[in-house]
Amino acid sequence: MSFVPNQFDDVSIATIRTLAADVVAKANSGHPGAPMGMAAVAHVLFSRFINANPKNSQWFNRDRFVLSNGHGCALQYVLLHLLGYKLSLDDLKAFRQIDSKTPGHPEFHHTDGIEVTTGPLGQGISAAVGLAIAQAHLGATYNKDGFDLINNFTYVFAGDGCLMEGVASEAASLAGHLQLGNLIVVYDDNHISIDGDTNVAFTEDVPKRFEAYGWDVLHVDDGDTDLKSIYEAIAKARTTPTPTLIRLRTTIGYGSKQQGTHGVHGAPLKADDIQQLKTKFGLPADKTFYVPEDTYAAYKEVGVRGAELESKWNALLESYKSQYPTEHAELTRRISGKLPENWEKNLPVYTPADAAQASRKLSEIVLSKLVPAIPDLIGGSADLTGSNLTRVKGMVDFQHPSTELGTYAGTYIRYGVREHAMGAIANGLSAYGGIVPYVSTFLNFVSYAAGAVRLSALSGHPVIWVATHDSIGLGEDGPTHQPIETGAHFRALPNCAFWRPADGNETSAAYKWALTTKSTPSILSLSRQNLPNLEGSTIDNAVKGGYVVHEVEGEALTIVSSGSEVSIALEAASKLQAEGIKTRVVSIPCWLVFDQQPQEYRLSVLRSGAPILSLEALSTTGWQKYSHEQYGIDTFGASGPYLQVYEKFGITGTNIASVGKKVVDFYKKKGGDVVSPILKAF
Amino acid sequence: MSFVPNQFDDVSIATIRTLAADVVAKANSGHPGAPMGMAAVAHVLFSRFINANPKNSQWFNRDRFVLSNGHGCALQYVLLHLLGYKLSLDDLKAFRQIDSKTPGHPEFHHTDGIEVTTGPLGQGISAAVGLAIAQAHLGATYNKDGFDLINNFTYVFAGDGCLMEGVASEAASLAGHLQLGNLIVVYDDNHISIDGDTNVAFTEDVPKRFEAYGWDVLHVDDGDTDLKSIYEAIAKARTTPTPTLIRLRTTIGYGSKQQGTHGVHGAPLKADDIQQLKTKFGLPADKTFYVPEDTYAAYKEVGVRGAELESKWNALLESYKSQYPTEHAELTRRISGKLPENWEKNLPVYTPADAAQASRKLSEIVLSKLVPAIPDLIGGSADLTGSNLTRVKGMVDFQHPSTELGTYAGTYIRYGVREHAMGAIANGLSAYGGIVPYVSTFLNFVSYAAGAVRLSALSGHPVIWVATHDSIGLGEDGPTHQPIETGAHFRALPNCAFWRPADGNETSAAYKWALTTKSTPSILSLSRQNLPNLEGSTIDNAVKGGYVVHEVEGEALTIVSSGSEVSIALEAASKLQAEGIKTRVVSIPCWLVFDQQPQEYRLSVLRSGAPILSLEALSTTGWQKYSHEQYGIDTFGASGPYLQVYEKFGITGTNIASVGKKVVDFYKKKGGDVVSPILKAF
Ligand SMILES: [Ca+2]
Ligand SMILES: [Ca+2]
Repeated sequence: MSFVPNQFDDVSIATIRTLAADVVAKANSGHPGAPMGMAAVAHVLFSRFINANPKNSQWFNRDRFVLSNGHGCALQYVLLHLLGYKLSLDDLKAFRQIDSKTPGHPEFHHTDGIEVTTGPLGQGISAAVGLAIAQAHLGATYNKDGFDLINNFTYVFAGDGCLMEGVASEAASLAGHLQLGNLIVVYDDNHISIDGDTNVAFTEDVPKRFEAYGWDVLHVDDGDTDLKSIYEAIAKARTTPTPTLIRLRTTIGYGSKQQGTHGVHGAPLKADDIQQLKTKFGLPADKTFYVPEDTYAAYKEVGVRGAELESKWNALLESYKSQYPTEHAELTRRISGKLPENWEKNLPVYTPADAAQASRKLSEIVLSKLVPAIPDLIGGSADLTGSNLTRVKGMVDFQHPSTELGTYAGTYIRYGVREHAMGAIANGLSAYGGIVPYVSTFLNFVSYAAGAVRLSALSGHPVIWVATHDSIGLGEDGPTHQPIETGAHFRALPNCAFWRPADGNETSAAYKWALTTKSTPSILSLSRQNLPNLEGSTIDNAVKGGYVVHEVEGEALTIVSSGSEVSIALEAASKLQAEGIKTRVVSIPCWLVFDQQPQEYRLSVLRSGAPILSLEALSTTGWQKYSHEQYGIDTFGASGPYLQVYEKFGITGTNIASVGKKVVDFYKKKGGDVVSPILKAF
Repeated sequence: MSFVPNQFDDVSIATIRTLAADVVAKANSGHPGAPMGMAAVAHVLFSRFINANPKNSQWFNRDRFVLSNGHGCALQYVLLHLLGYKLSLDDLKAFRQIDSKTPGHPEFHHTDGIEVTTGPLGQGISAAVGLAIAQAHLGATYNKDGFDLINNFTYVFAGDGCLMEGVASEAASLAGHLQLGNLIVVYDDNHISIDGDTNVAFTEDVPKRFEAYGWDVLHVDDGDTDLKSIYEAIAKARTTPTPTLIRLRTTIGYGSKQQGTHGVHGAPLKADDIQQLKTKFGLPADKTFYVPEDTYAAYKEVGVRGAELESKWNALLESYKSQYPTEHAELTRRISGKLPENWEKNLPVYTPADAAQASRKLSEIVLSKLVPAIPDLIGGSADLTGSNLTRVKGMVDFQHPSTELGTYAGTYIRYGVREHAMGAIANGLSAYGGIVPYVSTFLNFVSYAAGAVRLSALSGHPVIWVATHDSIGLGEDGPTHQPIETGAHFRALPNCAFWRPADGNETSAAYKWALTTKSTPSILSLSRQNLPNLEGSTIDNAVKGGYVVHEVEGEALTIVSSGSEVSIALEAASKLQAEGIKTRVVSIPCWLVFDQQPQEYRLSVLRSGAPILSLEALSTTGWQKYSHEQYGIDTFGASGPYLQVYEKFGITGTNIASVGKKVVDFYKKKGGDVVSPILKAF
């Protein structure tokens, strides 16, 4: 293939540049520099390479485009509009306004044609590695001779900021290891970041670094105007067997009087600057939001080509159906987002007679049942497989076949010690479709991935974190590895289901909920130590997020707890009972889900009439919502055998019984009604 | 310099290996593989190079040693013991036991001779960059001709895990940019990580990557036994003008029957394996915790040399005193950890007549007063200097002089978009001594650095985070940039002071507290938008962490709030007052500090008698501790002009007044006493 210029190229690029300037100016907020600098490459990429149908942004085999430098989203919004996605000129005029389709950074699910949420630097390029893995995996799984059904590329635009972020380094190293030839990153090397020239902080040899990761690196020296070189670089990148970084030298804010300076990075251009810009590029200086007919015509053609591609693909899929009916049924089911019928019947059920086990082990048992039943599950761990217990029998590693360590059809990813990239990659796997990713590390190190977990929650990616060793119960590794604040952190994160199951049935319930939701990530907080199976726990109870695990009438005290401490609460209750103090026990494995239950139910669980004491081997922060009194750990933990650490922090049946007595006495002395803490004024 | 072997080398290395195996075996928990693999390099480094005095681990110009692969701490504990630090054989026998000096990972302040806390992977090597910057800076500032007072090296041991972590990539890139020739990292290239062979996930060309960062890379092919090559590599590394990575090929668990396999990584050796190990290395197979006299003798000599070095240095410092009395006074004051006399008199004080300003701007004003008065302050930003407002007039960048962008005597670090490394580097700057680091980014992106902030808190490094744009008040950038869960997260983190000042005096108070503490990091959560100066706020009030900002007697309602919402609470109170509903307003800028006040004071602030409503433009999680009812944002934010975003979420004087009325009515209907939420049973 070689570059064939057309009559619309210049006017299209001029339109992108001036429209982006107008969009930012109208909002009086935003980043014009990157859109203007990257207009040429954007035009070449979208007009010549990207296979997508603007009229159906969900076509499964579309090329994925990720604007990792999401602050430059005026560029992406302009392109989506020109291409004919559901984004009008009025939407562009509402840039960065309340409830518009064009928020300050691109958001998945919010705007037609946005593949993943970007803006927090490094997230886009890392999620793109997930998109690329998804293609490689589904292609290897479902493509057949003559049926190259899943063969899209993933294209990324990224700036200096993204490449400085550690999460992107992690993801790029893994992408190189996995030899993801379907991944093409255009690095906008404009020598400018917010603090000014990149010379102040970023002087490493980026191409050499990416070569060290096993990437190809191509160079385009004039990214502002040299369409031919841009074209040739992208064309070449599509043919190489490794991921490619195209280092594109551009001028930030190209065409502005301030081009090439930090002044055009994050502030609108002045009116006179925009006017001279339009004049310079042959567009009327006095018109705003002006799109020449030629530009619309050029992009309409691109859309027509995309629609044809989809039609052909649909026909291919039909023909696949007759030759490979089983694979077709499975693939289309996966694309639809439905899990296999009756998958949940595989969930193990327990009685108190079953042996005590660590909830990480209970999780492994669930996975050992579900992985064979749900091919959508793609697991992995950040180098803690043997501790997280996430690689179940029969799983094959996802590896490039040349390594002989696995294949692209494999469903277990060796993420290496790269928690943050793992979280971002999982977002990409989920966004691609047809895949339900679960990832794992110690609960304490989910915090390393906080930026990615936040975007899971904001974007509604139902990623599952298998987060083991979830308290002081990990014992000897000590306070550097013992989470304290982690529960409060992720419970406070909107749309994040932090599950802390107490036993086997609750572990099954957590998986049941996590796999049923289509729009919420789950963190399964799991113990290293053994937990008994509780009388009173059932999947149906636990899947409500909270329930009474031990009921008595006329109680003097309720203890509300989660995870590994529920059995300790039950032990305390039984000691109190022996002293004539009637004590109920409530288990709340997931706050988010419990809060979604009807108030009547919640009030029946956390009822008025007696004080409620919370118990958890984590920070007490937030438990005030469900209890009058709180017992937990508001300092760092300690290194030692786990039972001794529990003893040190007073989390034993004996001590909690004694604390419970204090609570009962205090409320007796206080007098008056004891009202449920969830009864609220508004 | 060339390597001169001595008669004690072999026995010393054998002792390290067998003692480490014994330590882990006795604990029946821990990691023998790395200590055994790195025994040779540890011995060469400590016996030939490290300048330190075991009898005074605080000698200022000591070489710093960081075991970044902190799970191998049996190695470090063994060395500290052999060298004569305050660590007995009994301490080694108490490895990983409750309250011992030898926890599962090395902890700063906890164990004599530990420079920074390590274990969470990537943190040690990144903190080491901070240690190296500190030396470069203090050397450039205080060294004079003939007085090379501050010239120590920083040595790091790191494994594959550390090098896979993004935080380490960020730190290494910056270290290369800054040309830190005083930094030497020994990379234990043993081809093993927890998931097995590093081939499964880590196949990048590490030396090439570090060369891309601007590091020298040296190779030692036999790190198990080739002491001469190890010696020569370290000797060479000390002479190069850039940071050096020594790639040392070792055999994990060298000497074990399972050497070179993942089996020796994280589990004790079996008894028979330890016996054959001792026999193989010429030590008695039947003795445990056996240290030959020759080994003690060899290390005693090392200690004597260290003590002599310190004596000489002390003499040099005395002579410096007479020639450079001003510098001497300042340097020794800084070493002592005391700030200049009366520094706090520079803190600005405000009255309500002063113009409304953003608290990020108020922070800049504080810094503009304090930076000239406190040379200990080393600032910086993760590429958001112009938004964080952290580089005040007169500051010079910390840069290698060859760049002509600054000097090593400069006090402002351009961190680049590397939040996590910035946090870890700040830990190293603080650990070195003589430096008070402040670092900055948007509050939302402090989460990227959660791993480092956690270690600040655990280690007690009084790092200051200038965390601006701290709510939906950042407006147009939208939900990807608007923190919601961040307050709950860092308030739940033990020993972390999360300050959210409401105005000028509270901002001064936050800095006053943050600079006075010696053992707690502070996060200053600051607004983008303007905030009025409040009647009733004073530094003395705010430094208590919470106080009554608007008092009335016989109130029907108290509103408790923080930061930018305090003035909205006051507006609501005034509207309620106009309707005859007496309303007090409490400001709690810092939970941690408020909780440290005497109960009597806290009860006077959050008194019984009327309901308390909390108001904050962040998650309500945790506010239940201080209030009966909570108003906040438990969903993600929105992109738009900030006043409209506040309106959308109902955080306006009018709406909060209406919510306040509901609260008052609810509690009137409910009847009975309204008791302060901080009155507790235990
Ligand atoms: Ca840039
Ligand atoms: Ca290793």
